Amino acid sequence: MAGHKIKTLALVSSFGLSSFLAGSYYERKIAQDPPNLKKFPGLPIFGTVSAATPVSPVPSQTNVSRISQIMKYGFPGLDNIRSFDNYVLSYDKRNRVAHWVFEHITAESIKPNEGVDRSLCQFMPDESIHPYFRSLNSDYLKSGYDRGHLAAAGNHKCSQKLVEQTFYLSNMAPQVGVGFNRDAWNKLERYVRKLTKTYTNVYCCTGPLYLPRREPDGKNYVKYEVIGANHVAVPTHFFKVVVCETSDGKFEMESYVMPNQAISDETPLTSFRVPPESIEKAAGLLFFDNISRSKISKINGKKN
Amino acid sequence: MAGHKIKTLALVSSFGLSSFLAGSYYERKIAQDPPNLKKFPGLPIFGTVSAATPVSPVPSQTNVSRISQIMKYGFPGLDNIRSFDNYVLSYDKRNRVAHWVFEHITAESIKPNEGVDRSLCQFMPDESIHPYFRSLNSDYLKSGYDRGHLAAAGNHKCSQKLVEQTFYLSNMAPQVGVGFNRDAWNKLERYVRKLTKTYTNVYCCTGPLYLPRREPDGKNYVKYEVIGANHVAVPTHFFKVVVCETSDGKFEMESYVMPNQAISDETPLTSFRVPPESIEKAAGLLFFDNISRSKISKINGKKN
Repeated sequence: MAGHKIKTLALVSSFGLSSFLAGSYYERKIAQDPPNLKKFPGLPIFGTVSAATPVSPVPSQTNVSRISQIMKYGFPGLDNIRSFDNYVLSYDKRNRVAHWVFEHITAESIKPNEGVDRSLCQFMPDESIHPYFRSLNSDYLKSGYDRGHLAAAGNHKCSQKLVEQTFYLSNMAPQVGVGFNRDAWNKLERYVRKLTKTYTNVYCCTGPLYLPRREPDGKNYVKYEVIGANHVAVPTHFFKVVVCETSDGKFEMESYVMPNQAISDETPLTSFRVPPESIEKAAGLLFFDNISRSKISKINGKKN
Repeated sequence: MAGHKIKTLALVSSFGLSSFLAGSYYERKIAQDPPNLKKFPGLPIFGTVSAATPVSPVPSQTNVSRISQIMKYGFPGLDNIRSFDNYVLSYDKRNRVAHWVFEHITAESIKPNEGVDRSLCQFMPDESIHPYFRSLNSDYLKSGYDRGHLAAAGNHKCSQKLVEQTFYLSNMAPQVGVGFNRDAWNKLERYVRKLTKTYTNVYCCTGPLYLPRREPDGKNYVKYEVIGANHVAVPTHFFKVVVCETSDGKFEMESYVMPNQAISDETPLTSFRVPPESIEKAAGLLFFDNISRSKISKINGKKN
């Protein structure tokens, strides 16, 4: 009997439960009387969304109308919504990485202001996330991965406060640094910003994917690394789904999937375009649900 | 350039996006004018929960008060809540398997009624789930896995309608049949039912886990199979967290994690007990949040 018990426990613990056990009672204690902690960040009813209160001196009315603007064309999903002054995020408590982040950018909104200095920003744990599910800087340390922004810092350089809010770890995902975060992915971010030169409004939804892969046994498996004591998931891919609105209210859509790995500099961005439906199915999300897809004049550069 | 493009697309498609593409435009069309389909099943505001309307002739007021009873001690999470007459479910649209299901059972409620016949029940796709995220019987066909109940059929045998409602595929997860679903897991379900002989109320939360495992490279990976055209996830483990309430309002808690594999008949159930906190962290959920954990007199048989 004892032999069985040990064998069974080994089965369970080899799958990583053991590292969760240390300190769990202590954390439960914190959780029951949380200092400045919301167990369930506000649902997306605009009057009650949770704001990044510690850094936001903006009157809440301003904030609420900005959030309505950002989310004008629908929430991709409703799990654990967290709103900041200039972007909105849905947090995946199991993977400790956002499900998606949503941005609205215009030529005006992304214009860098003098005195705004990205190098003054620091990566901060997001205290609105319950400590059980919160990622920490220590999770990334020595992992080999960058703390990659989902809502791009470069889209929020019009004020120091706004760019600082992109440095919450709830907005980060483990990304391959050289060849991806610092290169191909950055190129895609810059491309999206450039769209504001052509279009009045650009809406951008960004998030991780955990895609299955066929293995030699003929079966499909999802496999991804998890890093640090909090088991932060390393996405296999990232997506961006972008809707561009012209001054006369027409819509165009582009959607991209990039593998989380070094990508050759010569690879054109267009080669990462995939039908938005394929991302929706893989991510478990619906994008721009408030715009009938038939109203979108172009998808990935082709007439819809 | 063309070579790069093909290589890049291969990278993306080898990870399983390609199988999502076929028929996606057709399905999008269905989704825009869905017959009897709710894109976002009701949030857990009791007046507006989505009920399994096709099979429910019960007055909605009855239903609402039953749901309040089932969920009395807190929702483990708020993602895609789906309520039935006798259990409540949160659906994971990415994995096509519930995050959790919640049941409340008593000696009275689990008493089988005459004329109730489980063998008349059929596994049904859950049409309240968007077709992009819905699992189908065809996904399980030839997969080698059982359609394993999360809310146990045996807990709902007091009426044909209630037991039928446990056969929605949203309540199923791919489970190893022999040695697990039909054996060890079934033993755990029967054990939970037996608790109603000792306790006035038994609250049971059940769900899947996708646990990381350390590989020879020293890193931790989450790896799980996905089956069928809809890529239904095969959980690595399943959990049950049970709270038992005595007639004088005292609480005891038990929590179990079992690997989704054949388990020897001699393995005692107690060997699968793990601290509830470890399941909470791994699942991204908080259990029985409306009961202060310090008010629970026993956890896994030990004085708390």
